[in-house]
Amino acid sequence: MAKIPPAHLAGQLSASLSFSDKVPAGDNVPRAVCDSCGFIHYVNPKIVVGSVVTWQGKFLMCRRAIEPRKGFWTLPAGFMEEGETPEEGAAREAREEACTEIKIRDLLAVYTVRHISQVQLMYRAELTSADFDVGEESQEVSLFDWEDIPWDALAFPSVAWALTQFRQVENDDRITPFVNPD
Amino acid sequence: MAKIPPAHLAGQLSASLSFSDKVPAGDNVPRAVCDSCGFIHYVNPKIVVGSVVTWQGKFLMCRRAIEPRKGFWTLPAGFMEEGETPEEGAAREAREEACTEIKIRDLLAVYTVRHISQVQLMYRAELTSADFDVGEESQEVSLFDWEDIPWDALAFPSVAWALTQFRQVENDDRITPFVNPD
Repeated sequence: MAKIPPAHLAGQLSASLSFSDKVPAGDNVPRAVCDSCGFIHYVNPKIVVGSVVTWQGKFLMCRRAIEPRKGFWTLPAGFMEEGETPEEGAAREAREEACTEIKIRDLLAVYTVRHISQVQLMYRAELTSADFDVGEESQEVSLFDWEDIPWDALAFPSVAWALTQFRQVENDDRITPFVNPD
Repeated sequence: MAKIPPAHLAGQLSASLSFSDKVPAGDNVPRAVCDSCGFIHYVNPKIVVGSVVTWQGKFLMCRRAIEPRKGFWTLPAGFMEEGETPEEGAAREAREEACTEIKIRDLLAVYTVRHISQVQLMYRAELTSADFDVGEESQEVSLFDWEDIPWDALAFPSVAWALTQFRQVENDDRITPFVNPD
């Protein structure tokens, strides 16, 4: 449900479709409702999937080649696509950004970036080999010792959250996923 | 990002906007791109938030008053809204469907319903009092002993998954969230 039907996205849309804000029956929030067919355009939070990837105690990080925060360091992460699991999405992001294969271990954290309605599912993962390379969305990909992580040049707050929280539970086999720190 | 801008949802849309499938620069998946302004309409997985809610060993369940699966039993759960955390969303759903306040404990499971691109974040939670009532989306709300759960009349497979997996870890303080069972 809540997918824009083809008629609302293709050329036909140019002729006669318009939307009005209405509270659908049984709902309590105004939604954009198509005036001609009643299709409800729901806008929902987006999911980002990513991981803290380690290899022999070092942390895999990517310097962003794209906006936002081009030139800053991040963890392999990005928008989850349709038809994949979060774990598959996190592995895909590592493949795209760092040309590498990872093994997902468990869920480290569920963050909410409220002002942009984003939910981030961050996993603990390991490289499956020392092979990685610079993906299309990265300027540079590198393994950092903890003390060499470029803390002053991180792309997003959640990168610091994930690294710091990962470090707190590094030796714990079973963890309750973190949320945003206070 | 990826929000439909007002011009794409309001009356203005009726005049001249049309979308074509194109692979945006730096992307590798075709997206619906507005022919006039280049706005990219991303379609991403939707998040459902819900919980297994207990009270003195009993399980809170709601019989659905709406489609899909009207008349079948479910856990308090629904689409996460913009601007809330998953935990707030799960609590809101319990409020809407069962007129009750819950206390979220931890994350029980992250399920993927691949064919409809849905990610379900299911929490362990408890009622904060024995007060509950029948919400607008429910026909009936009830507390069930484990053996009285209406297994043959559950609304969705993930309702059975969540209840069964909850039961497996009932006495565990710290749990790794489950995923879809095999």
